[in-house]
Amino acid sequence: MIVLYHCMSARSFRPLWMLEELQAPYELRMLPFPPRAHAREYLEVNPLGTVPAMIDGQLLMTESSAICEYLAVRYSTNGLHLCADETDFGLYLNWLHFGEATLTFPQTLILRYRRFETVSRRSPQVVEDYTRWFLGRLRAIDSALAGRTYLCQERFTGADISVGYALMLAEFIDLGGHFPERVQQYWTRLQQRAGFQRALAAQQQAAEQQGVSLIHSPLTGSD
Amino acid sequence: MIVLYHCMSARSFRPLWMLEELQAPYELRMLPFPPRAHAREYLEVNPLGTVPAMIDGQLLMTESSAICEYLAVRYSTNGLHLCADETDFGLYLNWLHFGEATLTFPQTLILRYRRFETVSRRSPQVVEDYTRWFLGRLRAIDSALAGRTYLCQERFTGADISVGYALMLAEFIDLGGHFPERVQQYWTRLQQRAGFQRALAAQQQAAEQQGVSLIHSPLTGSD
Repeated sequence: MIVLYHCMSARSFRPLWMLEELQAPYELRMLPFPPRAHAREYLEVNPLGTVPAMIDGQLLMTESSAICEYLAVRYSTNGLHLCADETDFGLYLNWLHFGEATLTFPQTLILRYRRFETVSRRSPQVVEDYTRWFLGRLRAIDSALAGRTYLCQERFTGADISVGYALMLAEFIDLGGHFPERVQQYWTRLQQRAGFQRALAAQQQAAEQQGVSLIHSPLTGSD
Repeated sequence: MIVLYHCMSARSFRPLWMLEELQAPYELRMLPFPPRAHAREYLEVNPLGTVPAMIDGQLLMTESSAICEYLAVRYSTNGLHLCADETDFGLYLNWLHFGEATLTFPQTLILRYRRFETVSRRSPQVVEDYTRWFLGRLRAIDSALAGRTYLCQERFTGADISVGYALMLAEFIDLGGHFPERVQQYWTRLQQRAGFQRALAAQQQAAEQQGVSLIHSPLTGSD
């Protein structure tokens, strides 16, 4: 059984969403955010202290987009992965990486230097620098979506989960109002998916059952 | 013919290194750094203005680790890619993403706020925050290398290029002295590879032939 360690609405939402799209069996273990401060025992699972951690047998993975790629290859029966002989294979890999490395990391800077740091360590300049960075990168999605429903091969894939989570995070940190029109329509489409809605419900239910406070979330927490 | 747009020793060194390991034919186009300031016409190739840009027929890719993964799948005859049925497949994907998203992005912050920004916009605090972040993440590589020569499946793969470039960059920004012993030995081993040395020679030769000043490099430049 796959085990996923997750903080409410953190990057680990990507593999959670993928698991729900795959309708694969898994166990969801909720953690307060950040676990390195509020769940020290988690360091025995993942010494980095970051989420996600995904365990599948002997395998431990910690990179959210890589986990999506892995799960889709190993468990997809409904085309969530692209095969090497499909036209958009290269684009698929590019969006998988782009969603995290280019679209999500800058947002973690905005969160950190606007909210998580103590007041004296906050930096409006860094927040502004990486807000501008993020919004500039959004234009690449807008262009790519011209004439397309999804990012690759005219079907929903792991690439949409990688990029879609970056849009979810952006909306939470109040950048949603800046989405270009096609990006906004795409994001609305993604949220309507049953798999996305099941993932939202799954984290809510697991948090309640496991008694993990929603205050300790990267999106609502104070640290 | 594959075309790779590259700035001296920038992230685009990853696909260059991969191409040299594959001994695949390619054309290398050198750009001054950052191209969005010194080579405005490049925005017609890659509107993001970032390097790398890799063109293979109709395909444009911009994420350095994704390009390594793509090239290895499409062109490797010598095992630079891991197949889905190999034991370390999940680890391979994790390291491919980790090398960029977790190990390289923090270093770009160090470069930006220590060197590229104007003096009044520099931030010793951000430099310190992400130096600490990077060094913490290095421990994951050190642990993973216990009893191993390479990161996955006991052979050199794209994962080593993804992580290896992060070590190359770290050494350039004076973090090399902090490498744990196994990481240092691993990095020494990577540099001894003929493919790595050919990639270094290729960028040097192309820069000279194309008249691109080495002053405009992310590692030596003032912007």
